[in-house]
Amino acid sequence: MVETVTACVIVIGNEILSGRTKDANIAYLGERLNALGVRLMEARVVPDVRETIIATVNECRAKFDYVFTTGGIGPTHDDITSECIAGAFDLPFGRNPKAEALLLSHYKTEDLTEARLRMANTPEGAELLENPVSKAPGFRVENVYVLPGVPSIMQAIFSLFEHTLVGGEPMLSETISVNVPEGVMAKPLGEIQDAHPDVEIGSYPFFRMGKLGASLVIRGTDGGKVAAAASAVRKAVHDLGGLAADEPQPETQT
Amino acid sequence: MVETVTACVIVIGNEILSGRTKDANIAYLGERLNALGVRLMEARVVPDVRETIIATVNECRAKFDYVFTTGGIGPTHDDITSECIAGAFDLPFGRNPKAEALLLSHYKTEDLTEARLRMANTPEGAELLENPVSKAPGFRVENVYVLPGVPSIMQAIFSLFEHTLVGGEPMLSETISVNVPEGVMAKPLGEIQDAHPDVEIGSYPFFRMGKLGASLVIRGTDGGKVAAAASAVRKAVHDLGGLAADEPQPETQT
Repeated sequence: MVETVTACVIVIGNEILSGRTKDANIAYLGERLNALGVRLMEARVVPDVRETIIATVNECRAKFDYVFTTGGIGPTHDDITSECIAGAFDLPFGRNPKAEALLLSHYKTEDLTEARLRMANTPEGAELLENPVSKAPGFRVENVYVLPGVPSIMQAIFSLFEHTLVGGEPMLSETISVNVPEGVMAKPLGEIQDAHPDVEIGSYPFFRMGKLGASLVIRGTDGGKVAAAASAVRKAVHDLGGLAADEPQPETQT
Repeated sequence: MVETVTACVIVIGNEILSGRTKDANIAYLGERLNALGVRLMEARVVPDVRETIIATVNECRAKFDYVFTTGGIGPTHDDITSECIAGAFDLPFGRNPKAEALLLSHYKTEDLTEARLRMANTPEGAELLENPVSKAPGFRVENVYVLPGVPSIMQAIFSLFEHTLVGGEPMLSETISVNVPEGVMAKPLGEIQDAHPDVEIGSYPFFRMGKLGASLVIRGTDGGKVAAAASAVRKAVHDLGGLAADEPQPETQT
């Protein structure tokens, strides 16, 4: 029996908490990690405050197998994540020669400002994570992966190292979209959940075209058990006179 | 001097952590709270796990002035937030007569299934939060506001009670969009931040039409100080030969 491998995402940035910027990194990492057999167990959004970042990183790296931070590793004064990671691990913080070489290969010498060189600072001994888009690398210290906040760059870096993550059994799922309101589905659904304890059945209500319905998600590590529970759900929907349609996974709900 | 009033949002639901559903509630609440003079200091996304929900609610309600939870108060077996709130406050949990009356006024008797009646269960003494859309109310216990996860319904409920929240000084902001890369802006921006310590200057890089730029956000409670720092930023951008455009607030970045 493979153990569950867990992860936590820490999104760092005042701009997410002020509502100015909508986070896209939690959903991306949740979905990718899931496919890799790693379960995202928690996500936190914290401000650009040194004490908060350090305390959160230390709490989460002790609690989860993997921690991914996004945001706060750019060149400006409000980018303080890298030095906070050094603080969390009590490591010296300074210029990383490999990171500096990467930036030198990308920028003309006259464009490599002191500010940009800040992006070559890491905790001592950090392993760099290659950035195929804009060169300034992410990095890893033990189980903490430090990534930028801009989704396209974060994703490009993640794609290059995700094969190195060691997952447990991948979580399989089927999603069934039904036109029966949750309040009507709830009783049979609870009974199906009781009869299929090895899967996890989630019900997510939606309004579409003015009609109430729900997406029913059946998740588990055993494909046969997921299929059996999904089949019981479809039968229950039909017995209620409703329609059940299989949804492609993953799906973004509005 | 008005004290800072703080808040935390707890998003409850496996579907956010699996990446299936993109959360929209953190950004909405962050923006509205900001306008009300309440600073969203942290957000957490937690799974539908009783112990985790209770521990998170108890930690956050002690740490912040206001706590808002979203998700997990519907009629299905995986909706466990309400009973967890009772657990967190060590209160009896059961049928709330006022909530039951609201549901009775909305559903025909034959449609008010046992599952739907679950939505009338609250911790003892909870204050109901009116739901103008689908009647099943949210509720408040002390400083914890318990709201549904569906964004349109959550927002409708929030809009009806937000005037009762007591904020501190509202946070004012100006956002300036510049076509100068962060690595070039960083030095003058750091100097402006040092010269204007009562405002908070954030720099958020973007790619638009293949061009690198940044949104510079100046925030503070003193409108004059925000304007002075914004003016210094505009001058610095012009001195660098760049263009600065005022952005409407709030803006969603891609």
